[in-house]
Amino acid sequence: MSIDRANIRWNGWGRENARTTFHVPETVWTWLAGVLGMPALLATPARTIEDIALPSVRLDAHDRGAIDAIVGSEQVHGDAHDRARHALGRSYYDLLRLRAGAPQFAPDAVVYPRSTSEVLALLAMASGRDLAVVPFGGGTSVVGGVTASAASHRAVIAIDMSRMSTVLFVDMRSLVASAEAGIFGPDLEKQLQSHGVTLGHYPQSFEFSTLGGWIAHRGSGQASGGYGRVKDWLLGLKLATPRGLLEVKPFPASSAGPDLLQLVAGSEGTLGIIAEATFRVRSRPTVSHYGAFLFPSFESGADAIRKAVQENVPATMLRLSDADETEFQRGYAGVGQSELRKHLAHLYLRARGVTAGASLLIAGFEGEPARVAHARRAFLAITKKAGAIGLGQGPGQRWLKGRFEAPYLRDELMGRGVGVDTFETATGWTNVARLHAAASAALREALRASAPKEGSKGITMCHISHAYTDGASLYFTCIFPRALDDEIGQWRMIKTAVTDALIANGGTLSHHHGVGEDHLAWMEEEKGPLGLDLLLAAKAALDPKGVLNPGKLIAARTPFRPFAQHAFENSALPASRPPARKGAGE
Amino acid sequence: MSIDRANIRWNGWGRENARTTFHVPETVWTWLAGVLGMPALLATPARTIEDIALPSVRLDAHDRGAIDAIVGSEQVHGDAHDRARHALGRSYYDLLRLRAGAPQFAPDAVVYPRSTSEVLALLAMASGRDLAVVPFGGGTSVVGGVTASAASHRAVIAIDMSRMSTVLFVDMRSLVASAEAGIFGPDLEKQLQSHGVTLGHYPQSFEFSTLGGWIAHRGSGQASGGYGRVKDWLLGLKLATPRGLLEVKPFPASSAGPDLLQLVAGSEGTLGIIAEATFRVRSRPTVSHYGAFLFPSFESGADAIRKAVQENVPATMLRLSDADETEFQRGYAGVGQSELRKHLAHLYLRARGVTAGASLLIAGFEGEPARVAHARRAFLAITKKAGAIGLGQGPGQRWLKGRFEAPYLRDELMGRGVGVDTFETATGWTNVARLHAAASAALREALRASAPKEGSKGITMCHISHAYTDGASLYFTCIFPRALDDEIGQWRMIKTAVTDALIANGGTLSHHHGVGEDHLAWMEEEKGPLGLDLLLAAKAALDPKGVLNPGKLIAARTPFRPFAQHAFENSALPASRPPARKGAGE
Repeated sequence: MSIDRANIRWNGWGRENARTTFHVPETVWTWLAGVLGMPALLATPARTIEDIALPSVRLDAHDRGAIDAIVGSEQVHGDAHDRARHALGRSYYDLLRLRAGAPQFAPDAVVYPRSTSEVLALLAMASGRDLAVVPFGGGTSVVGGVTASAASHRAVIAIDMSRMSTVLFVDMRSLVASAEAGIFGPDLEKQLQSHGVTLGHYPQSFEFSTLGGWIAHRGSGQASGGYGRVKDWLLGLKLATPRGLLEVKPFPASSAGPDLLQLVAGSEGTLGIIAEATFRVRSRPTVSHYGAFLFPSFESGADAIRKAVQENVPATMLRLSDADETEFQRGYAGVGQSELRKHLAHLYLRARGVTAGASLLIAGFEGEPARVAHARRAFLAITKKAGAIGLGQGPGQRWLKGRFEAPYLRDELMGRGVGVDTFETATGWTNVARLHAAASAALREALRASAPKEGSKGITMCHISHAYTDGASLYFTCIFPRALDDEIGQWRMIKTAVTDALIANGGTLSHHHGVGEDHLAWMEEEKGPLGLDLLLAAKAALDPKGVLNPGKLIAARTPFRPFAQHAFENSALPASRPPARKGAGE
Repeated sequence: MSIDRANIRWNGWGRENARTTFHVPETVWTWLAGVLGMPALLATPARTIEDIALPSVRLDAHDRGAIDAIVGSEQVHGDAHDRARHALGRSYYDLLRLRAGAPQFAPDAVVYPRSTSEVLALLAMASGRDLAVVPFGGGTSVVGGVTASAASHRAVIAIDMSRMSTVLFVDMRSLVASAEAGIFGPDLEKQLQSHGVTLGHYPQSFEFSTLGGWIAHRGSGQASGGYGRVKDWLLGLKLATPRGLLEVKPFPASSAGPDLLQLVAGSEGTLGIIAEATFRVRSRPTVSHYGAFLFPSFESGADAIRKAVQENVPATMLRLSDADETEFQRGYAGVGQSELRKHLAHLYLRARGVTAGASLLIAGFEGEPARVAHARRAFLAITKKAGAIGLGQGPGQRWLKGRFEAPYLRDELMGRGVGVDTFETATGWTNVARLHAAASAALREALRASAPKEGSKGITMCHISHAYTDGASLYFTCIFPRALDDEIGQWRMIKTAVTDALIANGGTLSHHHGVGEDHLAWMEEEKGPLGLDLLLAAKAALDPKGVLNPGKLIAARTPFRPFAQHAFENSALPASRPPARKGAGE
């Protein structure tokens, strides 16, 4: 079983037919226009597939013959829809270009291998014929992870892994499973859960992303508190490289030298293509409880999360919105409610001591009944000490229902002249408040400076969604009126300002989105020059011709071949990815 | 505070004056001689420091001047005791050579830097002057991790990190601490515990090993069930390399590319010298309970451990001896007891249904009272279902008391013609029984084949000491009469047979001892040829002259300089480390 790719939108989120279920009523648009200081929100529709001009195909007959000989011609697609759908990922910047009908990159062919040996043969062929290769899982990267750039190579093919989706085994005794890497989230979970187990990896992209993609960017699912990050559940893998197969065996633990698993995870298709993976699974939860609490402040909520994690309370998810996000969600939910109802709700909260800075926390607990009951009791005690008030299961159930849907809403917003982007990081507990304040301020200032009209304004919000004994993630969202005359310049200004602020204030470059092209300019600050040298050396060892996903993750420097800087080539739109800063990578 | 190195034995375990506390009574020797099928155990004393001939010093006045200029001459030692103490690690094979007075390797100088910048300067100097460098923490490696081999370089210096032992900070809010890497276990724990926290990393070498050494071989402490392995608690580090400082920042989590931390951890001094590390700490436990249980069989005990881990029972340690180890411990403890008492104990166990295959499990629980009580209850339920009988806290307390002492006993055994070595691995739960049987059989056969006298025999035993949801470690011990005419040949035969069996039957090359020189010949099977290429590429990037810890972890192949194969050079004793097998590494 695999997703029918033909139904997937080429210039937006998810399935074509799913769009209609995300109809936003006009009352919400009116409310939002008010929030953004706009007189009205104009329609800004995307171009249709018939309207776009893809770059001409650079593969010659020999190339095509070599590809066909490996996978068979029926596994090689060159139609406009498939090329456009594999042109870019799903970042705001990608959508700007796709909707404008000018995805200046597109693969010259999309190849659908059906086995690890086919992937190996494709990579050897591409390396020999100077063809760039973009490994393609679900294509949901929001950091420019799948831009179909040929860079300095003759042409570029996308290797779409979606036909490698077999669950290879489920070992119920060791609680270990293995699958081909092209399997999509829902398919994987369905098969695992039929055995009574779960991986529990639920990124927002869950429905349209793959096991291999999750590993390639070393991310987290929303329930990582309960089920762990990629680094926690990944046990072994097979990586197809131009030089052959690298197998990292799935031992429970080992001190036989460095852990190569954690070098491959996060390599974002620059070292090879993850063909198979072996991972820990857990018993499927029999009980699930997602409750909500309102904390007096973001700080008190963050402190409650810190205590819960440090005191080993087994929560599946602890998600805390800051005051801005809480306020926005209340406003959004309140659209269409009667003034009386809103007033009563306000009075109720004030009576219980909730002030303007109140912050909403959703606490999810999954597992065996006794464990969930214990966890809920322990967390309740912490919330009480912090002066939080319980809001029951309503907000949590609503969150669960919409947990994968925000990206659809982004498409709707973009169709009404509204931009939305997100930025995420992680830092130590001692630094959470400082980083939250600094990045919020930088984001507000960038929105102000890039606002298209006098009086219009963007809004910012933030939440903690992943917590550890030593720190937490911070996830910022901004919603803003698009500067239609220079949308990419606006995006670049915002992206650069926020990322600079994250790095300057002790955050990591990304907690779960990855690097791709968008974060490349900050990688030297993140990893240090010797850290980059290690990554470049690893790439040279496995991909000596530099054909794999050029321009992502690492910019080449002497003595390695320059497979970066391509992002600015052949640019039909204004200069694209954020420029290298402070001289890095130039 | 740092350990006074002058008191550390140069050819045995621990402190000079600690030897006397490990006096083994003659009754035990008599019992052991019987067990080993020997008429008596002869005295086989080690040579004294005055008796040994160290290789002559190869440093010239320019070298010495360059070293002195960095650290000051008082931080450079060249006396016989210091050179001999830094010549080799503490494997059985190392002790054979040290006790024989022929440690064919010895550093030409032992250097004691006091800062990261001194370490950086030393590495740049050594790289420029073609001096090999052996990073030296506690020197307790049991896999040949600190052999002072110059390999193809002009000379070799040991960089002893013990004067870099400052705790840099303890962040009680984030539960994170940082220290210089040369700090010894007891010093580190004393300082952390004075703040109310603990790292909880207690390898058997705890008293004489360092933070940096623990990270360099990516191992486990005895309490890893409660406090995690290196991979779980390590957050960041500073690695001094010949090309400068590599800093891996201590973020709680990150998806900004591959995790370089797990590439440095386990690199065993071949990529650089770990100068500082940042790590998670936990609240110091207020309650500690180590109870013992006797299971009907090794299999039933292993299954109880599996269930406990998979059901999230928060145990600090679960340690299960197989029937052979249980039997040996009972015999050892019973020496000197009256026959009546032994008979009564036997009758008691038989009455409770304990048969010949009974296996002893020690279950340790540490933490807050409520958590410990919960864990004990949950584990007790599992033991009851498995038909185990409780033996109270006696065996656990005895284990705790002697948890760091076994290496002292090894010295005593070696002084009476008895050899002892250990082998360890990890594998998935579905494979534990097979691997246990296969490796035990290989070990028994190797002991039989290498036994020195007709009728004499070695004994073997095994325990599980670290468990994960997906599998467990297996730790094998053998005790055998030394073949005094070819001790190294005997060791090599045993080592090779067991390691071959571990690898052939699905075990990892090492669960917590590391690779060093002794496991080097199996690294290609463990990591695959491309895995080795990645490690070699990383080394070439950070240590282009190959001066760092030559001959450990990875054997060079084209196009990298050959910094392996040195172990067989200038060999005064018969050929030393196990030969490369099946053509690997040759």
